[in-house]
Amino acid sequence: MAGNLSYPDAVEELIGALKQLPGIGRRGAERLALSMLGWEPEKLQYLGKLVETLPATVGSCPECGALSNAGELCAVCRLPDRDRQLVCVVETMAQVFAIEASGNFRGRYHVLGGRLSPLDAENGAGLNLEKLIGLARSGQVREIILALSPDVEGRATAIYLAELLRDAPVRVTQPALGLPAGANLSYADGATIAAALSGRTILGEGGYGR
Amino acid sequence: MAGNLSYPDAVEELIGALKQLPGIGRRGAERLALSMLGWEPEKLQYLGKLVETLPATVGSCPECGALSNAGELCAVCRLPDRDRQLVCVVETMAQVFAIEASGNFRGRYHVLGGRLSPLDAENGAGLNLEKLIGLARSGQVREIILALSPDVEGRATAIYLAELLRDAPVRVTQPALGLPAGANLSYADGATIAAALSGRTILGEGGYGR
Ligand SMILES: [Zn+2]
Ligand SMILES: [Zn+2]
Repeated sequence: MAGNLSYPDAVEELIGALKQLPGIGRRGAERLALSMLGWEPEKLQYLGKLVETLPATVGSCPECGALSNAGELCAVCRLPDRDRQLVCVVETMAQVFAIEASGNFRGRYHVLGGRLSPLDAENGAGLNLEKLIGLARSGQVREIILALSPDVEGRATAIYLAELLRDAPVRVTQPALGLPAGANLSYADGATIAAALSGRTILGEGGYGR
Repeated sequence: MAGNLSYPDAVEELIGALKQLPGIGRRGAERLALSMLGWEPEKLQYLGKLVETLPATVGSCPECGALSNAGELCAVCRLPDRDRQLVCVVETMAQVFAIEASGNFRGRYHVLGGRLSPLDAENGAGLNLEKLIGLARSGQVREIILALSPDVEGRATAIYLAELLRDAPVRVTQPALGLPAGANLSYADGATIAAALSGRTILGEGGYGR
């Protein structure tokens, strides 16, 4: 809408719906809607059907809770060469991608589907917890890495999970805190520097230990 | 896709389709797709149906060629108080909105649906031309403003249209070129300054005319 003019009804409705996507404002939604108007009907039908059928076509992996084709194992759980005794617990699928892109991890994942807010730290409703507890108690897992983000909610979630898994026969770990690779120390925040210093590792003993 | 991992098939397809929208890259499309996965099925169905049915629900105004509800007059042509003898020719609906937002124009529009490239200036294929020619020859129009953008293609289109309308009983005009309101002259480009100087208007005669 510019001045007191409006687009055709369906275009206004489309703009209204697209505006609800992250990072898309009124102007951006207008631009997307007008661009779609230039698409072939077949292409619009293809996109529309994809959107409509998402709830039916996309599900969560029965093994780990990650996004998957409905009723199928996810892309990681399908890999035959993963160490099934090493489980990395993450908040969402986005972290699975980040860790996979780092190229080093050879275990499997467990996707919580969210995290706890510190205010209801005792309420894990909506999180994929039963499966994790079962896994921890099964005796078939060696180590569970709680790879939550190192912020307030992530820490609250990790503490809650560690407590939940306390009696299970499994080692529970968390990723190291420290300076990010390639970072300039002068720009790091205080909490990161403090964590990096208290978790410092030995580069060489020199004559000290003799 | 990050590392060699991919999203579920439907999500990858959705990302691929969204990536074709202007200003949406792979990362942006991923963010939109993942956000849609969090929507209620009803909301996805609503958006999907809107997209699918665009070709059926949105048409062009039988009077002026602007976007409209299929089979209906557009928002401007529905206004009863417009001067139907004054026609402003624009490239697309976007210019209709810009001119309406300026708040001054009281005539009607004619939307070409594009413009000519200077290379095929003699080929107006795909443009909404017949209706414009009929309008110009009808004797029911006083003035046609060729409000094309003042760049190479816009100028080529305006020249082509002026030639096409040469024998019609109608005044053909174009918007003034000059410095944009509020602009700093030192930042204006040479062509704009030259146009502004050659089209200069009198502020006061002083003693000169006496
Ligand atoms: Zn999985
Ligand atoms: Zn119209």
